[in-house]
Amino acid sequence: MAKAENHRRPRRKQRTSRDLIEAPACLTRRIPPYELLDEGALVELENHAEWLLSEIGIEIRGDPVALGLFREAGATVDGELLRFDRGHLRSLCATAPRSYTMHARNPGKNIEFGGDRLIFGPAYGAPFVTDLERGRRYGTLEDFQNFVKLTYLSPWLQHQSGTICEPVDVAVNKRHLDMIYAHLRYSDKPFMGSVTAPERAEDSLAMARIVFGDDFMQQNLVIQGNINVNSPLVYDNTMTAALRTYAAANQGNVISPFIVGGAMSPVTQPATIAQAHAEAMVGIALTQLVRKGAPVVYGSFLTTMDLKSGAPTFGTPESTLATLAIAQLSRRLGLPFRCGGHLTASKLADAQAMQESTNAMNPAIMAGANFIFQAAGWLESGLTIGYEKFVIDVEQCGALARVVQGLQIDADQLAVDAYREAGAGTSFLGVGHTLRHYRSANYRADLCDAGSFEQWSETGGKDMRQRAFERWRQMLAEYVAPPLDPEIDEALLEFIARRKASMDDAWL
Amino acid sequence: MAKAENHRRPRRKQRTSRDLIEAPACLTRRIPPYELLDEGALVELENHAEWLLSEIGIEIRGDPVALGLFREAGATVDGELLRFDRGHLRSLCATAPRSYTMHARNPGKNIEFGGDRLIFGPAYGAPFVTDLERGRRYGTLEDFQNFVKLTYLSPWLQHQSGTICEPVDVAVNKRHLDMIYAHLRYSDKPFMGSVTAPERAEDSLAMARIVFGDDFMQQNLVIQGNINVNSPLVYDNTMTAALRTYAAANQGNVISPFIVGGAMSPVTQPATIAQAHAEAMVGIALTQLVRKGAPVVYGSFLTTMDLKSGAPTFGTPESTLATLAIAQLSRRLGLPFRCGGHLTASKLADAQAMQESTNAMNPAIMAGANFIFQAAGWLESGLTIGYEKFVIDVEQCGALARVVQGLQIDADQLAVDAYREAGAGTSFLGVGHTLRHYRSANYRADLCDAGSFEQWSETGGKDMRQRAFERWRQMLAEYVAPPLDPEIDEALLEFIARRKASMDDAWL
Repeated sequence: MAKAENHRRPRRKQRTSRDLIEAPACLTRRIPPYELLDEGALVELENHAEWLLSEIGIEIRGDPVALGLFREAGATVDGELLRFDRGHLRSLCATAPRSYTMHARNPGKNIEFGGDRLIFGPAYGAPFVTDLERGRRYGTLEDFQNFVKLTYLSPWLQHQSGTICEPVDVAVNKRHLDMIYAHLRYSDKPFMGSVTAPERAEDSLAMARIVFGDDFMQQNLVIQGNINVNSPLVYDNTMTAALRTYAAANQGNVISPFIVGGAMSPVTQPATIAQAHAEAMVGIALTQLVRKGAPVVYGSFLTTMDLKSGAPTFGTPESTLATLAIAQLSRRLGLPFRCGGHLTASKLADAQAMQESTNAMNPAIMAGANFIFQAAGWLESGLTIGYEKFVIDVEQCGALARVVQGLQIDADQLAVDAYREAGAGTSFLGVGHTLRHYRSANYRADLCDAGSFEQWSETGGKDMRQRAFERWRQMLAEYVAPPLDPEIDEALLEFIARRKASMDDAWL
Repeated sequence: MAKAENHRRPRRKQRTSRDLIEAPACLTRRIPPYELLDEGALVELENHAEWLLSEIGIEIRGDPVALGLFREAGATVDGELLRFDRGHLRSLCATAPRSYTMHARNPGKNIEFGGDRLIFGPAYGAPFVTDLERGRRYGTLEDFQNFVKLTYLSPWLQHQSGTICEPVDVAVNKRHLDMIYAHLRYSDKPFMGSVTAPERAEDSLAMARIVFGDDFMQQNLVIQGNINVNSPLVYDNTMTAALRTYAAANQGNVISPFIVGGAMSPVTQPATIAQAHAEAMVGIALTQLVRKGAPVVYGSFLTTMDLKSGAPTFGTPESTLATLAIAQLSRRLGLPFRCGGHLTASKLADAQAMQESTNAMNPAIMAGANFIFQAAGWLESGLTIGYEKFVIDVEQCGALARVVQGLQIDADQLAVDAYREAGAGTSFLGVGHTLRHYRSANYRADLCDAGSFEQWSETGGKDMRQRAFERWRQMLAEYVAPPLDPEIDEALLEFIARRKASMDDAWL
């Protein structure tokens, strides 16, 4: 079987945004993270997490293997409830690598986790899809493939996420095979595998091995599982078994407590932050007990609810503050950090969608997040992924990629020659300095209409959602798949056929 | 004439957002500002500003009085071009007060400028208005009055801004009288006066004196002028004359270089930042030469253009970086700082409008701005103010008011009792801690629909713009004017009648 390093880098044309500044394979952050809390407050939050772990405890339900690993490591196990001496979990997390490479099928698209790196990926997990023409409906395999293709075509998404939408037309116990195949066949960026059952995680690994080779995967990260916590303070065995499967294979896990404050944690943010920190450390420690040095991401997904209706809410001021604070805790642990995304409760790509999404994303950027999936397409509190929303969000990822580059203060940027040429009262439009810089000076967001009202009216008075509708359809119409060795393709299809033949369809 | 301190605080009902956390008269910031640049970079930018002022120079056109003041103070005056020795302007700015009170007609709505205070105000200067039903058209006095009323009703706007929209149906030389009257009659918060001619600034002051009294205004700030710079590096005499008029009366000025990089400054951000800093210092220094200690705001409005079409663009990554950096320069000068706003080039309250607006506002909040007008209603690069956009933006101001409160880490917020009551695996919805906090824990944004898709569809599947349309109409329908002493009202109307009778209508 061919290995990743032998693949040719496919010819790739920038189809989607001709005038964008060329996107690098991996973004590097050159601006400092925002420090919301001072040392004293951070220590208080850490102490509270330790109190939760030592007094309240955390359950791992239905996974004696995981409980056994923690017992051996010195935790107090009482039935399925784990308790940890202060500082113990923190020391168990210490063997997790601070930064590492994740390999893509196309080595030109390898990415780095941790440190000053920033990675964007699309939405994850929506059962519904929507677009301006067809409206909201259950997602299908075709939708899934479409979103993989759009991710491939989006220069500002460096990671494909995993279950971008649920292909509800495929049996629950088989759809992971079609999803992994789509990730491998229709794109060439890094992605996440199945976590809904240990055998599906094994299938995901097996398919990755067909492409990357077993030896390569023993030493290198090519696939991850996204591990949710059943907050408050519970891991269930589906998640811990998937976690153990990926970690045992030296592959990655993203530990993501998803907490809606008021239900899955107390309604106050400091408690929620400390709880999420405690929950994340348990998952991280488990990866290290399975295999020391296994790559892992400290994730966090903290949001709020409408306390009248119980509905989750996004991009709220409370979630902004929680995100900024937990990022600081994650930095003190030194691990790659995941948070944020273009999150919204809106049902379509309207003003609410982008107000909430931008509010949800900005603190992640300011906080110094390394990995931001749910960054494109998210709608309706994650129940729906929208085609228009997807391309709007991607353009915003490009803008944020520019923000994290920061400012460079040097003679050329200070433009002494421009002032000598123009002087007081003269436009800079025509000076040499402007002509030298105008192509690359500013990030260009094509979906934003900056023209005059008259131009805009004459071209139909379209809102951004309508322009986005045209964008994604054009992208899909022009899509060309990246090359894949036919031998590998055949092996993947054979594997899928064999696995599907071995099971009856299950729909729950 | 009655003076401000004698006015009764009017009965005020929270009409617009019944469930919002009660808004304070003035917001206090409890989170640290973001520090984008380090000391070395900031010194380089300051040095570059000094270089611009000493070598390139800045013009004041058509105002021999202002030129004379600077000559006397030691600047080099060459025709209308001013040059300053390094450090000279900075020392001229040193007498400006670092913080001060601005008095409202309703003393309960007095606000503080500078330090850790944050003030929001609506849009300023749009000739057009738009709403969902009637579309875009020229603004009228009725529109102006409507926006004053909406500002009055908006708990998250503490300042009324000034020319919220242009009442184009009133003669150019008379409309300031109607605008000042509307500010005084239909609201009771602080506001800005006319700057389009010195006699209009004098009229604004005269009308303020009718309400606040001459003695009071000798010692207290009640009205401001918003002073634009004719960038690059030019002040024209309309602006400097208005500035001198307000400063001489010991009233306020907001010095606001409005720079679209690439035309009014070089296309690179560091040059733009240094230029804006130089321009702001000239205006600030002029206020101090007119009257030492006159209240002034260091303003900045830095944005970008689409370098293909020449159209201004908002909420761009380059403008984010410039805003974050110039805030640092302003802090080093120690003056109240104005920047930001809910800015967009979009023609309506769609996804683009809120993506750009949120992006334009967030850096102002992170940067530690003290005064953010243009915070509600802005559309179409400032050419239009939108009714729907207005109420959407106001709700976002409320969310930001919560962000700047930061987190409080204490026993109650850490919710020890909630964990003792709930424990691992139990929802926190019903615990005592949640019940104690649920009313005030989270800011509630009513225009955001967080309900289910089914609920949303059943109630018409409205987007945020449609919901906002209903909101502002309801607000206007329920509006009740704050009380105004009939004697004062009569005096104001008399003054306006006399002034109007003294002039023919001018329409240019």
